[in-house]
Amino acid sequence: MSKFKSVGLVGRLGSEAAYYSLQRLMAFLRKRQITAHIDEETAEAVPHSGLNQVPRDKLRHECDLVIVVGGDGSLLGMARSLVGSDVPLLGINRGRLGFLTDISPEEIERKVGAVLDGEYRDDRRFLIDGLVMRAGHCIGQSTALNDVVLHPGQFIRMIEFDLFIDEQYVYRQRSDGLIISTPTGSTAYALSGGGPIMYPSLDAIEMVPMNPHNLSSRPIVVNGGAAIRMVIGDQRDVRPIVTFDGQTHIVTHEGDEVLINKCPSSLRLIHPKGHNFYEICRNKLGWERDAQKL
Amino acid sequence: MSKFKSVGLVGRLGSEAAYYSLQRLMAFLRKRQITAHIDEETAEAVPHSGLNQVPRDKLRHECDLVIVVGGDGSLLGMARSLVGSDVPLLGINRGRLGFLTDISPEEIERKVGAVLDGEYRDDRRFLIDGLVMRAGHCIGQSTALNDVVLHPGQFIRMIEFDLFIDEQYVYRQRSDGLIISTPTGSTAYALSGGGPIMYPSLDAIEMVPMNPHNLSSRPIVVNGGAAIRMVIGDQRDVRPIVTFDGQTHIVTHEGDEVLINKCPSSLRLIHPKGHNFYEICRNKLGWERDAQKL
Amino acid sequence: MSKFKSVGLVGRLGSEAAYYSLQRLMAFLRKRQITAHIDEETAEAVPHSGLNQVPRDKLRHECDLVIVVGGDGSLLGMARSLVGSDVPLLGINRGRLGFLTDISPEEIERKVGAVLDGEYRDDRRFLIDGLVMRAGHCIGQSTALNDVVLHPGQFIRMIEFDLFIDEQYVYRQRSDGLIISTPTGSTAYALSGGGPIMYPSLDAIEMVPMNPHNLSSRPIVVNGGAAIRMVIGDQRDVRPIVTFDGQTHIVTHEGDEVLINKCPSSLRLIHPKGHNFYEICRNKLGWERDAQKL
Amino acid sequence: MSKFKSVGLVGRLGSEAAYYSLQRLMAFLRKRQITAHIDEETAEAVPHSGLNQVPRDKLRHECDLVIVVGGDGSLLGMARSLVGSDVPLLGINRGRLGFLTDISPEEIERKVGAVLDGEYRDDRRFLIDGLVMRAGHCIGQSTALNDVVLHPGQFIRMIEFDLFIDEQYVYRQRSDGLIISTPTGSTAYALSGGGPIMYPSLDAIEMVPMNPHNLSSRPIVVNGGAAIRMVIGDQRDVRPIVTFDGQTHIVTHEGDEVLINKCPSSLRLIHPKGHNFYEICRNKLGWERDAQKL
Repeated sequence: MSKFKSVGLVGRLGSEAAYYSLQRLMAFLRKRQITAHIDEETAEAVPHSGLNQVPRDKLRHECDLVIVVGGDGSLLGMARSLVGSDVPLLGINRGRLGFLTDISPEEIERKVGAVLDGEYRDDRRFLIDGLVMRAGHCIGQSTALNDVVLHPGQFIRMIEFDLFIDEQYVYRQRSDGLIISTPTGSTAYALSGGGPIMYPSLDAIEMVPMNPHNLSSRPIVVNGGAAIRMVIGDQRDVRPIVTFDGQTHIVTHEGDEVLINKCPSSLRLIHPKGHNFYEICRNKLGWERDAQKL
Repeated sequence: MSKFKSVGLVGRLGSEAAYYSLQRLMAFLRKRQITAHIDEETAEAVPHSGLNQVPRDKLRHECDLVIVVGGDGSLLGMARSLVGSDVPLLGINRGRLGFLTDISPEEIERKVGAVLDGEYRDDRRFLIDGLVMRAGHCIGQSTALNDVVLHPGQFIRMIEFDLFIDEQYVYRQRSDGLIISTPTGSTAYALSGGGPIMYPSLDAIEMVPMNPHNLSSRPIVVNGGAAIRMVIGDQRDVRPIVTFDGQTHIVTHEGDEVLINKCPSSLRLIHPKGHNFYEICRNKLGWERDAQKL
Repeated sequence: MSKFKSVGLVGRLGSEAAYYSLQRLMAFLRKRQITAHIDEETAEAVPHSGLNQVPRDKLRHECDLVIVVGGDGSLLGMARSLVGSDVPLLGINRGRLGFLTDISPEEIERKVGAVLDGEYRDDRRFLIDGLVMRAGHCIGQSTALNDVVLHPGQFIRMIEFDLFIDEQYVYRQRSDGLIISTPTGSTAYALSGGGPIMYPSLDAIEMVPMNPHNLSSRPIVVNGGAAIRMVIGDQRDVRPIVTFDGQTHIVTHEGDEVLINKCPSSLRLIHPKGHNFYEICRNKLGWERDAQKL
Repeated sequence: MSKFKSVGLVGRLGSEAAYYSLQRLMAFLRKRQITAHIDEETAEAVPHSGLNQVPRDKLRHECDLVIVVGGDGSLLGMARSLVGSDVPLLGINRGRLGFLTDISPEEIERKVGAVLDGEYRDDRRFLIDGLVMRAGHCIGQSTALNDVVLHPGQFIRMIEFDLFIDEQYVYRQRSDGLIISTPTGSTAYALSGGGPIMYPSLDAIEMVPMNPHNLSSRPIVVNGGAAIRMVIGDQRDVRPIVTFDGQTHIVTHEGDEVLINKCPSSLRLIHPKGHNFYEICRNKLGWERDAQKL
């Protein structure tokens, strides 16, 4: 008997490969006689599926498992809407291994099958909340699984801000911005920016300055529970933007405060047994290849 | 009345500035009528002090506070011999601010005075144990407050080893070596090597590859409790060395295993109130200066 | 007798410090009975100067020396309008040493005096031309003394392009963009991006990828005469921008070609004798400080 | 008819793969009726070859082409002994593409054949001379195709030295050492150390500090003709070493001067037509792979 009774499906639109994986997954679930619901938006791409359509943010109430088909980016949005529920999230990629979407299309029957049989392991990931305060009022807030980035919006404009951690002044930074990343995000944008890889279960947040004027600036890693505060400086004609997982944006102006804290609720990601973080690193970052070749 | 009754003194030898600070400290303790013991080695540099001489590794039994006068490097050795006792360690520098030796000579009366009056804060630091196994037997072990470094001994020789974390294979690395650093060591050698700054209380260990052949290698930060294992590869004519805090060395050969774990006991470092990690960073790394100048 | 008969003055507007330096410079030139012309825009900030007003791009015809008062950024714009003439350019800063504006306000009489007396050295700098081709037609072009940057315009959007050097294919890059810098620009934005410092007279161009997805991407230095070509890839909703010296912008779209070549004419920068590139590096980058402190 | 009449053969000893390639090459030359000479050392590994044995440093007098079979490292030593002669050098690898040894074993007949037919292109590489002066006398000198490295000999020891370029003081550096690299060496050790890739024909030298204490130190690229001078500082118990191409060593002490200059003679490397530097970069550095995968 299946561990999960009702599965929600979410797919990346406009991708042939995702469409193929989704069809294969639906066929498999039918065969296993699992009730499947489909996200309303995804349903547009898969007409005549005969599945019950559910708005994305309601899936958590209808399902006891949600499966995302797409890249890591596709999973981020769904992840935020599951936070605080205990509904686990499973990721299937489109043929290219992801850090979060680690089941390949050709493994669907075997690996999703195993998960349905209860053969999986939990992988709790924390998120970070960000809110922007202006003159004592909150003017915007959002949540990120990967990263919150403070940046100039238009590129090639320096921004200036004061950074405080747990109410201790750190420095005034002049740069292209700051990436504030969870362990989950440490293998995404923060890695391109020069930040370290953090093991997924580490209770820590990293801050990676982007093109800092000060050549002695370095990534800083602090406790996951640290309270991070940035006070936006005078930028002349630039209105810095706070971006969550590359998807949600809040425009700031001088004097605004950006507050970042660990989100009280976490995301319940699950993987087939045998999932191995370092194996994904080796594969995606080309570690093995170089060890053998250079 | 003083919080501490009996103070042990350790100084860096052969430094005019340390000698001056030590004299000033001894005069101050006399005036405060605190019993002072002096480390035997240090005593050679300060003859006729009239102080009771104690071997360095016995100071923990005679004193309820140990003060080191010197640079961060001087404090490392003493730190290891206090591990596991509850005797706190205080650092006085020789005129140049240190991350660990944060009281300047001209502040001795005021700041050491405040500490004696009980005005201080505790700053527990963890250490890492390293041991080298050969054919099932331990051939050497030591402890580090800053870092354990695997390196070729002779420079300009690549070494090769397999890295495992919590028994998961990470990769085979070919490089000039690997720095395994505590948060305390993250502002020392690991920082020069390109590693991130970790806040002192973070429960994490960073691994920084040195000049890796694989250009996609990056610093990795893992949980403080992670079990790190390196298996030495075939090095032809090189015998890689494991160095602890730059001071203790173990020579390895092919097939040896180097095991690194968090030390069960910690070091009790203390600071005058008002001590601020980021302020020391700003000062030592030139963060403020550049913010103003560039 | 003065080596230069007619001096053009250009100042950064809206800066108290620049205004002060400009006044001091005008007084000095009057005393030396040098004919001074003032840039029309600058004249607005210095009414009643009694100086002949000249449009910025005509200064080269009226003067045999142009002096810019401001930061390095202020000098860039003027520099481009002098290219191809033999009129030299001298830079005075506003109290903070610049790589290009290396005379400080308090040195005006002594150092500008020496230059007028013929005590100076020439420092030829090359520029780079960039033009954007679409379906065989040029849709925009400009020139840079520091750098040409290809970037997404809106931040946090990856761009993709193919890079060719001297008609050899280099790679397809996915990144936040590419900085293409002259030696002059190598101590500006390219340095923040991780590029090497190039000695000003080096005949070379550096390309610095910004946050590349490919972790093995590295800055590349090629001959100054190299022909650099980028072919813009499919960016979905992003229209990458080509920016010259942070001041001029050309918007591209998929399939456009960006061609970068050394400008046939150079800029004649002059410095008081004793000017030393490495001294400015030590001062601005904090090299000396750290050598003494850490 | 062959462009080259007499070919010298040099192989890496102790490698099965090199032995195989060498046999295949000898068979091919016999078939083409080319006179082949073999380096004396290599001859030991290939007894009964029937070839004329010649000491390595005499090959230049007996041959009008020298072919090295091995890795890039194997070619370095031979390269230095051909400097100043006009005898070209061709490299065959052992199955793994090299930057210098770019013909693969299975291409021997086709590509070496083409070279013998005159189908090749010249690729002049410059070398750098280094000499160590003590109290006005030269105590050692050598030449490098890749790099000259100043380092502590024993690892984990900082060294300190003053750097001058063209008699201008640059800075006092405290670090694990300095890599001084030609364009040829820029894809070898200097690249692991964080230096930029320089196009092979660029007339420039790069200096890459290793683990510098000063976090604002950066790689510096200067004109190929620059005179580089390092004055060894007080190192207590360390005697810094100057190493040429990882193969030749000179031990220094305090006050010694290390002088680095471009070698007046160059090396004549040749490649089959179609050889492409960036293609080798893509292959060896994994550029293509990542473009497609991440």
